[in-house]
Amino acid sequence: MTAATRTEQDAFGTVEIRSDRYWGAQTQRALGVFEIGEERFPAVLVRTFGLQKFAAARANVQCGVLAPVLASAIETAALELHEGLWDDHFPLTIWQTGSGTQTNMNANEVIANRANELLGRPLGTKAPVHPNDHVNASQSSNDSFPTVMHVAAAIEMTGRLRPALDELRSALAERSHAFASVVKIARTHLMDAVPMTMGQTFATFEHQISNALARADGALPRLLTIPQGGTAAGTGLNAPRDFDGFFCATLAEATGLAFAPNPHKFEGMAAHDALVEASGALNTIATSLLKIANDIRFLGSGPRCGLGELLIPDDGLTSSIMPGKRNPTIAEVLVQGCFEVIGNHQTITLAGASGNFELNVAKPVLIYNLLQSLRVIADSVRVFSRRLVCGIEVDRERLVKNVNQALLAVTALNPILGYDRVAQITATALEDRITPRAAAIALGFIDGDEYDRLVDPAVLARGGRL
Amino acid sequence: MTAATRTEQDAFGTVEIRSDRYWGAQTQRALGVFEIGEERFPAVLVRTFGLQKFAAARANVQCGVLAPVLASAIETAALELHEGLWDDHFPLTIWQTGSGTQTNMNANEVIANRANELLGRPLGTKAPVHPNDHVNASQSSNDSFPTVMHVAAAIEMTGRLRPALDELRSALAERSHAFASVVKIARTHLMDAVPMTMGQTFATFEHQISNALARADGALPRLLTIPQGGTAAGTGLNAPRDFDGFFCATLAEATGLAFAPNPHKFEGMAAHDALVEASGALNTIATSLLKIANDIRFLGSGPRCGLGELLIPDDGLTSSIMPGKRNPTIAEVLVQGCFEVIGNHQTITLAGASGNFELNVAKPVLIYNLLQSLRVIADSVRVFSRRLVCGIEVDRERLVKNVNQALLAVTALNPILGYDRVAQITATALEDRITPRAAAIALGFIDGDEYDRLVDPAVLARGGRL
Amino acid sequence: MTAATRTEQDAFGTVEIRSDRYWGAQTQRALGVFEIGEERFPAVLVRTFGLQKFAAARANVQCGVLAPVLASAIETAALELHEGLWDDHFPLTIWQTGSGTQTNMNANEVIANRANELLGRPLGTKAPVHPNDHVNASQSSNDSFPTVMHVAAAIEMTGRLRPALDELRSALAERSHAFASVVKIARTHLMDAVPMTMGQTFATFEHQISNALARADGALPRLLTIPQGGTAAGTGLNAPRDFDGFFCATLAEATGLAFAPNPHKFEGMAAHDALVEASGALNTIATSLLKIANDIRFLGSGPRCGLGELLIPDDGLTSSIMPGKRNPTIAEVLVQGCFEVIGNHQTITLAGASGNFELNVAKPVLIYNLLQSLRVIADSVRVFSRRLVCGIEVDRERLVKNVNQALLAVTALNPILGYDRVAQITATALEDRITPRAAAIALGFIDGDEYDRLVDPAVLARGGRL
Amino acid sequence: MTAATRTEQDAFGTVEIRSDRYWGAQTQRALGVFEIGEERFPAVLVRTFGLQKFAAARANVQCGVLAPVLASAIETAALELHEGLWDDHFPLTIWQTGSGTQTNMNANEVIANRANELLGRPLGTKAPVHPNDHVNASQSSNDSFPTVMHVAAAIEMTGRLRPALDELRSALAERSHAFASVVKIARTHLMDAVPMTMGQTFATFEHQISNALARADGALPRLLTIPQGGTAAGTGLNAPRDFDGFFCATLAEATGLAFAPNPHKFEGMAAHDALVEASGALNTIATSLLKIANDIRFLGSGPRCGLGELLIPDDGLTSSIMPGKRNPTIAEVLVQGCFEVIGNHQTITLAGASGNFELNVAKPVLIYNLLQSLRVIADSVRVFSRRLVCGIEVDRERLVKNVNQALLAVTALNPILGYDRVAQITATALEDRITPRAAAIALGFIDGDEYDRLVDPAVLARGGRL
Repeated sequence: MTAATRTEQDAFGTVEIRSDRYWGAQTQRALGVFEIGEERFPAVLVRTFGLQKFAAARANVQCGVLAPVLASAIETAALELHEGLWDDHFPLTIWQTGSGTQTNMNANEVIANRANELLGRPLGTKAPVHPNDHVNASQSSNDSFPTVMHVAAAIEMTGRLRPALDELRSALAERSHAFASVVKIARTHLMDAVPMTMGQTFATFEHQISNALARADGALPRLLTIPQGGTAAGTGLNAPRDFDGFFCATLAEATGLAFAPNPHKFEGMAAHDALVEASGALNTIATSLLKIANDIRFLGSGPRCGLGELLIPDDGLTSSIMPGKRNPTIAEVLVQGCFEVIGNHQTITLAGASGNFELNVAKPVLIYNLLQSLRVIADSVRVFSRRLVCGIEVDRERLVKNVNQALLAVTALNPILGYDRVAQITATALEDRITPRAAAIALGFIDGDEYDRLVDPAVLARGGRL
Repeated sequence: MTAATRTEQDAFGTVEIRSDRYWGAQTQRALGVFEIGEERFPAVLVRTFGLQKFAAARANVQCGVLAPVLASAIETAALELHEGLWDDHFPLTIWQTGSGTQTNMNANEVIANRANELLGRPLGTKAPVHPNDHVNASQSSNDSFPTVMHVAAAIEMTGRLRPALDELRSALAERSHAFASVVKIARTHLMDAVPMTMGQTFATFEHQISNALARADGALPRLLTIPQGGTAAGTGLNAPRDFDGFFCATLAEATGLAFAPNPHKFEGMAAHDALVEASGALNTIATSLLKIANDIRFLGSGPRCGLGELLIPDDGLTSSIMPGKRNPTIAEVLVQGCFEVIGNHQTITLAGASGNFELNVAKPVLIYNLLQSLRVIADSVRVFSRRLVCGIEVDRERLVKNVNQALLAVTALNPILGYDRVAQITATALEDRITPRAAAIALGFIDGDEYDRLVDPAVLARGGRL
Repeated sequence: MTAATRTEQDAFGTVEIRSDRYWGAQTQRALGVFEIGEERFPAVLVRTFGLQKFAAARANVQCGVLAPVLASAIETAALELHEGLWDDHFPLTIWQTGSGTQTNMNANEVIANRANELLGRPLGTKAPVHPNDHVNASQSSNDSFPTVMHVAAAIEMTGRLRPALDELRSALAERSHAFASVVKIARTHLMDAVPMTMGQTFATFEHQISNALARADGALPRLLTIPQGGTAAGTGLNAPRDFDGFFCATLAEATGLAFAPNPHKFEGMAAHDALVEASGALNTIATSLLKIANDIRFLGSGPRCGLGELLIPDDGLTSSIMPGKRNPTIAEVLVQGCFEVIGNHQTITLAGASGNFELNVAKPVLIYNLLQSLRVIADSVRVFSRRLVCGIEVDRERLVKNVNQALLAVTALNPILGYDRVAQITATALEDRITPRAAAIALGFIDGDEYDRLVDPAVLARGGRL
Repeated sequence: MTAATRTEQDAFGTVEIRSDRYWGAQTQRALGVFEIGEERFPAVLVRTFGLQKFAAARANVQCGVLAPVLASAIETAALELHEGLWDDHFPLTIWQTGSGTQTNMNANEVIANRANELLGRPLGTKAPVHPNDHVNASQSSNDSFPTVMHVAAAIEMTGRLRPALDELRSALAERSHAFASVVKIARTHLMDAVPMTMGQTFATFEHQISNALARADGALPRLLTIPQGGTAAGTGLNAPRDFDGFFCATLAEATGLAFAPNPHKFEGMAAHDALVEASGALNTIATSLLKIANDIRFLGSGPRCGLGELLIPDDGLTSSIMPGKRNPTIAEVLVQGCFEVIGNHQTITLAGASGNFELNVAKPVLIYNLLQSLRVIADSVRVFSRRLVCGIEVDRERLVKNVNQALLAVTALNPILGYDRVAQITATALEDRITPRAAAIALGFIDGDEYDRLVDPAVLARGGRL
């Protein structure tokens, strides 16, 4: 037994739709055409369409091209969509036409049906509110979908990623402060080098994340520039002259973000350089995070046969065969998330480069990947900060032992002894398996007191400055 | 009011779990730790765990290390999992530890609980069937998860992708045959070149897809080689000597695929070269498909101001602002799917290259991307074949007009007139806006009859051979 | 017969070197170790080492750690290196240790030998000027090589790429102005859409390049921040306190670029996020250029069977078999250059993400790729501007014909007739192979005069605004 | 004062060329057009053109379309080119038209000039041997350039990469054998796991390289399939019927590789899937090599504060500031080479996917990257084998200490004690900082003799099998 259906009509004829669904003919047709995959737009994109249709309806009233009674119903329905009430009425996957037209039509249809319902008419009537003539008035998929792409990306960038990065920066700064006087041996080429502090290690990470925040911000100006008002192909055909300005004012007020019209709307529809640029910022941020996550994994390796300088907090998870084994699971998640982001950047670059003439038709796959990258980094950074970084401790015993036996603190003697004689010290220490201090004395280059005065690891960690 | 819960215990203490959920303590802990993203393993991976636990239980009995009564309950539960009955009891996203341990434990826990239930015991007792000691007997996540990765990828490669490619190959061959005598102008550097047939165009596509099938097959031998039996790190510790052989025999019988033990199990756990290789095949296949989809999009562009040589079947979808506009939506989906696959290949390459020592810990993100690539290509190729390629027609009028006015069929005169005089013909035709035939005659190089005999487009399309 | 040699010594023993070569023992050893490939650093990198050693010598004098007489010889030699006099004395490929140490030592050795020569001593004496103790004083490869990476990249970004992009922007603006009143049919999904102007097409390109300039500039602040002074691992060991400031002042004066010390030097050596970021900007710029080059190639396709709206200037090159065939060769070069840049970005991202602990050891491959990207884009953009864009013309006859027969200018009637009736017009026109004007009249929706008033392509190209 | 010049003529007019240069008018024109970058094709590509023109001349004689006297001169000149005598007469960079036409014309011109010289005529006469009519007879750039791409790639794959990989495989096998009884602690998630041997570590690497060889071989069949004979666009226009077969026979004889005609020549010119596939194999090989190089770097880290299990042979290179510091330079080169290969794969994928209609016009950038990848991997693998792998030793003292203190050898007790009690042992050992043996005894689970019998690391490394 199948569910009851109603009949809807579009330019190509009639279509049967389940009675309890608010979408219309074009969405239903698309369902039949695109039986592909399971990937869906995240809620933020669908709900941003609510915001977009709301702002459009309001601008249409301000321009005098939409009757207030219709606009009022459309605005109510659009806000409901924005609030998530109609999430379940967006059945399509991302595998649809490259302009995102089907999802724009889905939004038009749901809002039209709901608005008509609010106005006391049954679903499917397309009157008094018509999905194209009223909900989509002064708009095209060509300008609405990329506008929603920009708005959703900007919302996630500022509301999800930025706070997560900021939290990580704070956690790293706090650990840097806590470890300010913990001396360790630096490693270059993975090999033991000169002394430094664990505080400096975490300050390096913190500095990377400070820059990451700057990079996220750097992508914003062009994300906040939107092509709404370009309608078909960028010409602005059928959109009133001030539509774009009114639209952006409403949108800015609703989001707190300074959206402004793209002065050359063709550009915002034919190309998505701004979104490729945003993904480029995420790609750089991912390289920073990979460095941090991998360093922490390796510095915490062991507990007995690894580097073992950091103690990573326990998360209660263990091996299915090695009982009680503890693994840096959360750092591994972050690493994997970064791989996803770097791969997504490739997809986004290809999608961004593939526009022809007046329209880029890889919009759905582009925004799907960009929103996924934003979400995955933000979420995994947040968990990484709270459950791993905040609880990291050092193994002071191990660190002291390492500092005492490492060879290259003697680099401090270069200005006194010259490069070539210091090279003799390290070669002797390595060959005779003794400390560099013992080697320096044995070679007759320096006495013990002078050595201890000149080669104090804690001082060397400050560049040898007292 | 919250749902009723039961208490489960693991090595780290007790955990509360919703009474109606079959997972156990490690899964529940993981849920609390990894609050990240929404990406879930596709059903094929979860269900393949059913197959893997079934084959393991059977092998354990064959090796004499698992009591038949316990094995029987485990096998029943595992088959239920394989059939999809317990899909809803895998709540974790892919953002978990890099070995996939939490999903392996999830499978162990669901099967243990279900087996105990079958044996008349309540959920959460871990007896008589223990998730680690019995369901996971002779196994580790280290060998089980990569085994499932290989099995799921091989199933999708052979059962989903191959048939879809084969269907496309047939459809292209059919169109090639239908257009065998349709003469057109070839384009090199996008510019008009010599005559060929539309049948040759589609035969080129068909040849690419024939090679694509060979590439998919080329990745199989190493996909069918699995590390089960390696247990912890690849050593085989706690797995009976013949466990791997028994396991593969059961698996091969269940799937019809010739799975065999990896002779060096460390390799199958520490590295995932075989899966990178499979993704490499998909990457090449994606480049073939991009060529095909783009050529069809451009050859069908128009209807009046484009190349307009192909007529793409109508799909009932249109623009939200330009009424009745018809677009090559399905080709655009395929293009976008290929971008996804190429980006996924980057993620998979990074994940594959990131193993350290005895374990690659980017397994979840790697297999998620690989299974997504397989699914997206297969599905979009199938829709592309059925809804687009099968119905393509040619605009014969347009093609004839193009053939008649194109310049470079005169290349056929090179052997008679020499390169330099033929160059004079094309320069004259271009400048005087006349046909090359008229130019050749005007230059006095040849008379009209001779020209028509030597420059017959249909013959030239066969390389000038009669 | 072999060339005469001299003997040089380093910490590991003696080495024979050709008498007429200015490099020393470490370079000679490296030559023997790394027999790999042919890729060499571009001259800009080698010469920037001259600048770096010059600024270091001057800073060492300012800090009182280098005798003026030695510094003076070092500075002279370093400036000679900067001017290109010693290019031939850098024999190593980029395939060397990941810190670039061998090329830094190569610079130290060449300058030391030349400085000693200037001071009247033979090559190979290492006295009075020692390559490590004096030329490399207050420095390490760890800080010098990444400093040179930043400086060379900044020089190329500002001195090569920026002017080329600016020239392209101007050329596009000029063409946009020239084609301001040339009406054409827009294409979305490759399919005929509404009217616009060719001026708008070129203005879209111009807008993309304006943004490209902003993106290039956006990467500069972090490029201008350099780690010199960090010496071993970032600690600053053996560098005087104000060395970094003095160094940057000299460098800024010499280059006209506002270089400043990285306040956290560890970051500038362990990570190369700033260079990944710069490559990200180039990656986005490449996507813009791909769009532009491909659009121009397609719009100029033909001359008789393509889109044929643009006339690309002839470059005198032709086919080896099809006499007189003209191809958009320069656009193809630009496309290929963009592919190189996008692939290089992948290498740079991997290199940037691969740092461990206190040192990123993928420096040579990273900077080789980044400088290649900068050069290839800049050069091909310059040629593209001068030889192709500047000379582009339009085929007005073809454009008028297209505009007259295209269907979707009737979109302008949506506000009057409603979406559904306009859909009838386009369907009728398409089916009956008539103009949309004829169809609109035949359907009785509008008369000819009204149609001509409302559907004026030149007006529609301005969004229907008079 | 400029060099003396001669005048050459082509279809577009006359051109001045330096008298001592053998190239002709089209090459000289191209030099003026493409002032871009410095990247040149490697010698193998230019010399393969000698082979290609030689085989073409011979086939033309066999088909009766070229006079033997001309063919003889062409063959002599072509073989000289093949032997490297005319390398300096190929002045163009790779930044040329996407079909590689200019380099094909360069070869035609050099051979024509040289052949005419052999026949007693001055350079520039184009008679009796004409570059297009005779040297290029029965050919087009469209089929000749991709043929050369395939041939050069196959030569490098079989003659350079394969031997290098085979040498590495042998070196790893030898080390695996040498370390067969050296017990160590496995690491999963970077954390201490169960015992294994160092021999198994190197056998894992060996197994990866055995598979790498299979992957290199897997790409060959389609590399050996060449489109020569397709001439313009793939039609075979102006090529005699059996030209392709004769051509391949000569080529196969000259190279020892089983080249065969592509049965569908359009495919070999419009698409380069076979080359993308070959690059995919290199990409997978790069992931294997990254794993191996990184493991060796980390296992050899120290000498005192790292993992320190492997001793990497000294290469005589050191730090510019830390005297005597020894770094794994050669492993770092290999890592960087792999990054280059992975990035090149991206460029190659993009280039391969970008074909339109009858011609892929990203040929130069594609083959440049592919040949670079082959060379860089082959060379760096060879150096890695000879200078690093062959000389690797183990630090037995360190390994024994690690094995004795590691916790998870107790996994061997799972079958006796059950997972949950073994978890108690490891928790106790970790908390009390004692050995797991002491913990197991203290918990009363087992006595010392029984423990030593069941937990023998050397036995556990064999999976617990005696």
